[in-house]
Amino acid sequence: MSKYWSERVRELQPYVPGEQPQVDGLIKLNTNENPYPPSPKVVEALQASSLERLRLYPDPYSRPLQTSVANLYGLKPEQVIVGNGSDEVLAFAFMAFFMQDRPLLYPDITYSFYPVYCQLFGITPRTIPVREDFTIALEDYPSDNGGIIFPNPNAPTSIGVPLEEIESLLKRNTDSVVIVDEAYVDFGAQSAAALVDRYPNLLVIQTLSKSRSLAGSRVGFAVGHVDLIEGMDRVKNSFNSYPVDYLAQIVACAALDDREYFNRCRDQVIATRTWCTSALEELGFEVLPSQTNFLFARPPTPVSAAELAQALREAKILVRYFNQPRVSEYLRISLGTDTEMTYLVDTLKTLLKPRAQI
Amino acid sequence: MSKYWSERVRELQPYVPGEQPQVDGLIKLNTNENPYPPSPKVVEALQASSLERLRLYPDPYSRPLQTSVANLYGLKPEQVIVGNGSDEVLAFAFMAFFMQDRPLLYPDITYSFYPVYCQLFGITPRTIPVREDFTIALEDYPSDNGGIIFPNPNAPTSIGVPLEEIESLLKRNTDSVVIVDEAYVDFGAQSAAALVDRYPNLLVIQTLSKSRSLAGSRVGFAVGHVDLIEGMDRVKNSFNSYPVDYLAQIVACAALDDREYFNRCRDQVIATRTWCTSALEELGFEVLPSQTNFLFARPPTPVSAAELAQALREAKILVRYFNQPRVSEYLRISLGTDTEMTYLVDTLKTLLKPRAQI
Repeated sequence: MSKYWSERVRELQPYVPGEQPQVDGLIKLNTNENPYPPSPKVVEALQASSLERLRLYPDPYSRPLQTSVANLYGLKPEQVIVGNGSDEVLAFAFMAFFMQDRPLLYPDITYSFYPVYCQLFGITPRTIPVREDFTIALEDYPSDNGGIIFPNPNAPTSIGVPLEEIESLLKRNTDSVVIVDEAYVDFGAQSAAALVDRYPNLLVIQTLSKSRSLAGSRVGFAVGHVDLIEGMDRVKNSFNSYPVDYLAQIVACAALDDREYFNRCRDQVIATRTWCTSALEELGFEVLPSQTNFLFARPPTPVSAAELAQALREAKILVRYFNQPRVSEYLRISLGTDTEMTYLVDTLKTLLKPRAQI
Repeated sequence: MSKYWSERVRELQPYVPGEQPQVDGLIKLNTNENPYPPSPKVVEALQASSLERLRLYPDPYSRPLQTSVANLYGLKPEQVIVGNGSDEVLAFAFMAFFMQDRPLLYPDITYSFYPVYCQLFGITPRTIPVREDFTIALEDYPSDNGGIIFPNPNAPTSIGVPLEEIESLLKRNTDSVVIVDEAYVDFGAQSAAALVDRYPNLLVIQTLSKSRSLAGSRVGFAVGHVDLIEGMDRVKNSFNSYPVDYLAQIVACAALDDREYFNRCRDQVIATRTWCTSALEELGFEVLPSQTNFLFARPPTPVSAAELAQALREAKILVRYFNQPRVSEYLRISLGTDTEMTYLVDTLKTLLKPRAQI
C-alpha cells in the first residue's frame, strides 16, 4: 500500500485470472480456452497482412470487424462496438450505463469480475441468489434497479437461461439496461442478439476468446440499440481511442467469417462434453448440465474440491477452484481435447480409487 | 442522448483523434505516425511466432516485454507496466493516483486527452499556463495538488523541458505523483526514466507508436517505483487482466530490442526536421523549436491556419488543426519522409504565393 494510491485503488480487490503457467507440459483446463487452434483462415489473413501498415494507427472503430459481427446476427454495423477483449467491453458498459445511484443487480454466483468493476467505478451491487439447482431466477429481479447483468450461460455454473425468460425480463424491465454476457453462448445456449432490435435497453456482449479460439488476440464485442452503442463509444473515446490493434482486427475478421471451421470446433467440444459428463458421473461426480466449454462438477463425498484441485495440479493438470460461498465444493474444468480429457478421467480414477478403498 | 446513459457519460466530451482516412493516396501528416516501417526484426518475430498459441490467453503482465523495457533503462521488470497503448497506461495512472479531492495540475496547452480522463474519472483539473514562448513553466506549479502531469516534449507545441527543471519539480513536489508523458521523447528530449530510482513519486510513460513505428500495435508502458507500478497493476487487474495481446507482445519486444534500426529511423526523422524547419521558415512560417517528430508552425500573416489546413486537405495532405485558445493560428505537421515533406513544402509554396501577390 502506497501513500500515492488513490482511495479507490486502496479499496480494490482486483480480479484474479486463472493461472497462465510459465512452464510447458501442463494440461491447462483452468481458463476455458478452446483446445483447437484458430481457423486456418486466420493464418492466411495474417500472412496476407501488410506489416508495413503497423506504423499507422488502426481503424479506431474496427469497421470491417463491426461489419463481420453485424453480418453474424443480421444487424447494422452501427449496432456493434468492438473492444480489447470482452472484459474491456464490459468495463465500457459498466461506465456507460451502471454508474448511477440505483443498485446493479446480478446473480450471487456469477462472473467474479462484476463486483470488481463495481468497486472500480463506484457502483453499488445487489446480488440475487440463484436457485438451489444453480439456475438463474430472473423472476426474482426487482424492477427498481440501476441495471441488470448476468452471463448466459452463467459462469462458473455452466447453466444457460432460456431465451423466453430473458424476453420476459426485458418486457417488465424497461427503465434500465439489461446486459446478457454471452462469453460461452456458442456452445449450446441461445443468443439474445436476436432480441436487440426489439428491446432498446438490451446489450449483448460476446468474446472471440472461447468459441473462436482467439484468447490470445483479445477481441470482444457488444451489440445493441445504436443509442447504447453510442454511449459506449463515448466511453471508449474517453479512455482509449484505438482499443483493437491492426493485427487483432485482421485475425478477428478472418475467424468470424470462417463459419464452417467454427461449427466444426464447436461440435467437437460439445461431443467431448457429452462423454466427459458421463465419465465424471460414473466416477461419482455431480456435474451441472453444461451449455459451455467447461464442466462445473462436485467430486464424490468425502473428497474435497480444494484438495482434488491440488492433487490434479501435482499430476500436471490445472483446473479452477473458487473458494467462495455455495461453490467451494465444485471444480470448474475446461473441456480440452479428447486426449487431454481421457488423461483427466484416468487421473481422477487413480486419485479417487485409494480413498474409496480406505 | 439516451435515457439509459449514466450521468457521467452524458457530460463527457470525448477525445477526438486525428482522422484515419479510409481512402488511399493521401499524405498523412496528421497523427504523428512514423513514416518508416517497423524494424525488420518485427517481421521476423511475427513469422517465427506460433499462431496456434493464439487460442491461449497471453501473459497478463507481458513479462518478456517488461524485461525489454527494463533493459532499455537499466531498471527491474517490476518497475514496468505495459498496456494497450500509452492512452490506456495513462487511464490506469489517472485512476491509480489522481482520483482524489485535490486538483490535478497540467499545462493549459497540452495533450487534449488529459481533460477527458478528468471528466471520465471525476477528477478536478487545474491548468497552469505555458509561457508566452509556449515552454512549460514548472516553477508555476503549486505544491498543494493531487498530482501533476505534462508531456515532455509537450504536445502539440513540440517543445521539451530540460531534465534539471523536472528534477527541481520532483525535489519540491513529494506528496503527489508526477507523471512525465514521454510519447515523443526519443526524438530529442531527455527521458526522466533516469530519475525513477531516486524519486518514488515519479512515473514516466512512453509509447511504441511513434519512435518504434508501431502505432498499429497499441503498446505503451510506464516505469516508476514498484509501489506505483503495483497501484497501476491493481487498476489493470480490475479493468482488463490481459490488456496486451500475444502478437502485440511479440512485435513490441522485437522492436524494442532492435536499437540499431531505432537509432537509424530516429536520426532520419531528425534530419528531415532540420531541413523542413528551415524550409517552412523561408516561407514565412514561425516554427517552434521541435524535439518531436512533428512541427508546430504558424503560417505567415495574413494566412489563417484553419484555411490553410483545408487548402492542404484539398491538395491531399492531412495536417492537424486545433481550434483551441492560444494555438488556433498554428498547424501541427507530422514529419513524413523526405519525399512527402518536399511535396508539402512545394504545395505550401503554391498555396501561399497567390496570396502574397494579391
